[in-house]
Amino acid sequence: MRYARFEKDGVVACGIVEGDQIAVIDGKILDEGDRTGKTYTLDSVKLLPPVIPKTFYAAGLNYLAHVLEMAEERGVKPNIPEKPDIGYRANNALIGHDDTIIIPKDATEMVEYEAELVVVIGKQAKHLSEADALSCVFGYTIGNDVSERTWQRGDRTFWRGKNADTFKPMGPWIETDIDLDSLQTTVRLNGETTISFETNKMLFGVERYISAMSKYLTLYPGDVIWMGTEGKSPQMKHGDVCEIDITGIGTLRNPIIRES
Amino acid sequence: MRYARFEKDGVVACGIVEGDQIAVIDGKILDEGDRTGKTYTLDSVKLLPPVIPKTFYAAGLNYLAHVLEMAEERGVKPNIPEKPDIGYRANNALIGHDDTIIIPKDATEMVEYEAELVVVIGKQAKHLSEADALSCVFGYTIGNDVSERTWQRGDRTFWRGKNADTFKPMGPWIETDIDLDSLQTTVRLNGETTISFETNKMLFGVERYISAMSKYLTLYPGDVIWMGTEGKSPQMKHGDVCEIDITGIGTLRNPIIRES
Repeated sequence: MRYARFEKDGVVACGIVEGDQIAVIDGKILDEGDRTGKTYTLDSVKLLPPVIPKTFYAAGLNYLAHVLEMAEERGVKPNIPEKPDIGYRANNALIGHDDTIIIPKDATEMVEYEAELVVVIGKQAKHLSEADALSCVFGYTIGNDVSERTWQRGDRTFWRGKNADTFKPMGPWIETDIDLDSLQTTVRLNGETTISFETNKMLFGVERYISAMSKYLTLYPGDVIWMGTEGKSPQMKHGDVCEIDITGIGTLRNPIIRES
Repeated sequence: MRYARFEKDGVVACGIVEGDQIAVIDGKILDEGDRTGKTYTLDSVKLLPPVIPKTFYAAGLNYLAHVLEMAEERGVKPNIPEKPDIGYRANNALIGHDDTIIIPKDATEMVEYEAELVVVIGKQAKHLSEADALSCVFGYTIGNDVSERTWQRGDRTFWRGKNADTFKPMGPWIETDIDLDSLQTTVRLNGETTISFETNKMLFGVERYISAMSKYLTLYPGDVIWMGTEGKSPQMKHGDVCEIDITGIGTLRNPIIRES
């Protein structure tokens, strides 16, 4: 099932996506509300980030080639993580499908995409084993961990390098029926494929992350875990359009402009 | 005015604290709701963290002696920040006044307090000058940035070193009427004063942080900015009680236990 959050005529609502239609439900996505009987065409609504998390988790370094290529670019020894230490991103930066990524006017040219599988938590959970880890998962969506590499590397934290307003597109919706091993992530910049990789070929998989995290912290409904990205991105510039496709979920598309 | 969020007979509500009484208001703290006419004694309610932020900001290194003493403890050269790069903490870790800080069973003995002034945002804001920065502030509360130093230094992120469940006590309430320059922060461990410092003697003050942050990110009502701490903490152990007092705001008190 595909759950979306959207705005129509100034009102925020949730619904089930079926083909090019969206069937409105009562209540929020994670409550799996009843159908109200009202239906809209998808192209007549504005899709919003499907959830605003209580805590916004991000794996960071979780695919081998990404770790190696980022280290090579910086001329440093690759630091391959030995355990799943989870990181964070910030809610101010979230935008939805088709929203515009705005590059701040004083950013360098080093603005890049990172295509990520996003895990959406559905049930409060602590102390989950790896075998039980997926029991707290509601579904999956797509994230673009937009990064200004000069700030990412020069600042003491990721506050503007990764969390400037509009730097965290998430969507288009949450898919609940997923076979992780069958997923393929593909990125297109202006229609041209720039990378394609097996989504689940991670250093530490979803089960491993959830089990490790939940040893020390409680996961809450609506929390999201961005699972990291593979490879290296070309620079994105004013006028570009970035599309991230994960088979079985959908496509997250965002145009890019530079603030003038 | 002092605004508190509390639980009474299983119901969450907000109110205005006056002496040892709390006058219930309609709606949430940041709406500054009307008085309902109902009043409770403070000791008959359970105080909650006064807000759950959309984004939970933390300054980290923002007092000189803290930077120097932490570096000395680690045997490294002190890295005094040259600009206000804001960091983050996680909502799962928030607890209120009088709630118990629970040290995970496999934590080392290196569990320490950090007494912090907390800025609570009241109005959506972007691109604020330093002169206008305080216009978005609703009030101030107190935070204890509990830190397990071994994990803080050994992990790739602060996920369990600073964000394990219960590691972020915040409260007891929000005070809206504050003269920043007159504040004094004092910490007592088991009743004995362990440190006392001028709250506003920061490397970068509240105005400087808000102005710098709001150049790239939108601040939202309910966001909190923890302003960092001074000096060094003794280790906290099972059975201890930590009290942080900021003049003009109040006292945040939390007992500590170690998970068995």
